[in-house]
Amino acid sequence: MKRRSYYRLPAGVQDLLPDECYNLNLIEKKLEEKFMLAGCSRVQSAALEYYDTYAEIKNKIPQKKMFKLTDGDGSLLVLRPDMTLAVARMAATSPLALPAKLCYFSNVWDYAGAGSYTIREIYQAGVEFLGRSGAFSDAQAIAFAIECLQAIGLKDFIVDVGHAGFFKGILQECDLDGDAVEEVRLLVNAKDAPGAQALLEKYGAPRRAADALAALPTLFGGEEVLSRAEKYAGSPAAREALDRLKRVYALLKDFGLEKYVSFDLGTVKDLSYYSGVVFTGLTRSIGSPILSGGRYDNLADDFGRHVPAVGFAMGLKRILIALERQGALRPAAPRADVVIFSEEGAETKAYQAYLELTAAGRRVDLAAGDAKEAETLKNAGMVVLKATKKGVEKI
Amino acid sequence: MKRRSYYRLPAGVQDLLPDECYNLNLIEKKLEEKFMLAGCSRVQSAALEYYDTYAEIKNKIPQKKMFKLTDGDGSLLVLRPDMTLAVARMAATSPLALPAKLCYFSNVWDYAGAGSYTIREIYQAGVEFLGRSGAFSDAQAIAFAIECLQAIGLKDFIVDVGHAGFFKGILQECDLDGDAVEEVRLLVNAKDAPGAQALLEKYGAPRRAADALAALPTLFGGEEVLSRAEKYAGSPAAREALDRLKRVYALLKDFGLEKYVSFDLGTVKDLSYYSGVVFTGLTRSIGSPILSGGRYDNLADDFGRHVPAVGFAMGLKRILIALERQGALRPAAPRADVVIFSEEGAETKAYQAYLELTAAGRRVDLAAGDAKEAETLKNAGMVVLKATKKGVEKI
Repeated sequence: MKRRSYYRLPAGVQDLLPDECYNLNLIEKKLEEKFMLAGCSRVQSAALEYYDTYAEIKNKIPQKKMFKLTDGDGSLLVLRPDMTLAVARMAATSPLALPAKLCYFSNVWDYAGAGSYTIREIYQAGVEFLGRSGAFSDAQAIAFAIECLQAIGLKDFIVDVGHAGFFKGILQECDLDGDAVEEVRLLVNAKDAPGAQALLEKYGAPRRAADALAALPTLFGGEEVLSRAEKYAGSPAAREALDRLKRVYALLKDFGLEKYVSFDLGTVKDLSYYSGVVFTGLTRSIGSPILSGGRYDNLADDFGRHVPAVGFAMGLKRILIALERQGALRPAAPRADVVIFSEEGAETKAYQAYLELTAAGRRVDLAAGDAKEAETLKNAGMVVLKATKKGVEKI
Repeated sequence: MKRRSYYRLPAGVQDLLPDECYNLNLIEKKLEEKFMLAGCSRVQSAALEYYDTYAEIKNKIPQKKMFKLTDGDGSLLVLRPDMTLAVARMAATSPLALPAKLCYFSNVWDYAGAGSYTIREIYQAGVEFLGRSGAFSDAQAIAFAIECLQAIGLKDFIVDVGHAGFFKGILQECDLDGDAVEEVRLLVNAKDAPGAQALLEKYGAPRRAADALAALPTLFGGEEVLSRAEKYAGSPAAREALDRLKRVYALLKDFGLEKYVSFDLGTVKDLSYYSGVVFTGLTRSIGSPILSGGRYDNLADDFGRHVPAVGFAMGLKRILIALERQGALRPAAPRADVVIFSEEGAETKAYQAYLELTAAGRRVDLAAGDAKEAETLKNAGMVVLKATKKGVEKI
């Protein structure tokens, strides 16, 4: 039969076949265990939401990043573009008691797929610590991110820490309106420092702010970044951001986690909702971030409730690729430990053997008699049983 | 703050808050255990697919049941409307070795929501036994459906068994073309026997077929249905269907499962791809089916590979409602067994206590000092610890 084009999948989405799915599930189980031990409760948000939920709020998602559909009543829907926003909406509009630690395993969809259509269906595991503020809670979130990456066996990773307030503080000195701030943020985000400086000049920003902006892309590295950043912390917001980072780092160092931590004050996250520390998990095994998070104290305000919060999400498919490159993936388990082949008339004996063996924790497949298949499975190391009218025996 | 309309969700989709999610996860875990013990491998298909994948095949999904979106290149996409079709596509277009038992936990989306917009995002757990034919494999699938419903603690359920060939056999005698068959099928599916009869009359079908069609809605109940159906099994296909049902029932009876099995030969599934036995899990606790499955030997042909197969899917949210009505849901676990509050300056002691306790399997939440919260948690039965510079102790 001709292979038709519609057997393929749209750009940027994938199926996971048993081998990949097996390894993904191993990661999920390890993370779920970590989440449960840290007192997280799982939630699941609807995959379909109103466009306005994400477009009509202060911390809106760019229109072009969302998959849009029209509903029967004419309303515009989107595929959930962001889990942190979805959890903030749930926390704000439900009778959820705070503080709460919520976690999820969910897809988000990105129409633009980071501009290249490469990954548009993104499977994430994440946590949101809701109703907690302060440096200890920041440090806990970062420490927990490190624990999670350790738990899934990832090697050679760091968590790069910044603070949304540092950049915002520099801009504070420039007396720009919201749109102009966003314009500059997008340029910095695109690593276009000269463009951002030119824009600041156009808006008549003070020289000191322009200099600080020029220095931003250089403010990355180890602990020393926090000293180098001192001279750019002129505004109260930048000062506060730097002090908070120092406090968080002191805690992380005290926790014994400093070797996993680096700094990048030039980090300007893609999403505008971060209000405090921001952090990104990176590994040399893959070029894109595998974890992304931060503090977003004002996000739930968009949905009518003030909930200070910090959280992060991990991109599980990216982590799967990184683990594969680190040689840490396991071959998928064979589908069963035992296969029982049944002769005509011995099906009930075979079924009873299946019940007994599975009750004892063995993984058992049942099959109708097929000598060739039995031979293949035996050679693959499986225990092969044969049910006849006389009984069930190993062959 | 004013509560805006966009805080709501579109018709037919829901969020799952911690309590519901907790119980859903308990069900998932029990099913996953069953699936693994029965030798199933998990797969995950893309949520976004080309419209043509489901619309341009023989066993197509009705257009009005699919959520549709347009991609940037102008192609029409849909949200996955059916997992059995998705698994058949994966099995046919990948190098998957057969036989294989695949399982999944996935959403499907139904634009029409069974006509009432009530449930449009349907979370399913399911299995597909691929590459196996014969009555033993039918019986195994039905027995496994029963085992799964038992495993999740559902009471008062039956699995209603029919055969797609019985109805098709009756129509065979009428010499109708494919469109006319589908027209009749839709009427029977809507329980409109008089309408179906009138249509058959219009198409000049033989009297015997019209009589059989009139009898279809009465052919439900226990084992005796198989005898009552004898006189309507005039065509070779209906004969074969009835013989197969008898053989499958004999096996199920021998397996000791007859009390869970009833018959409904009037069952005409919503989806046209079933080719053999069909079955539906029902419980008095909820008016809609909680499980649906059957044999679909020719479905993967649509994607270029012949794969005899049988499988079923369970609607987990409906099962959750049924379990709730049976009083079988557990209250959600408290978020943690232990909460550690930390004084300023004792955070590292608190963090170390968290690491030690979680390593020992305790679920531990960390918090900054808040006397009021500590009191509430203690009253709720949690172990509350306090970290001070001197050490960590119970309060």
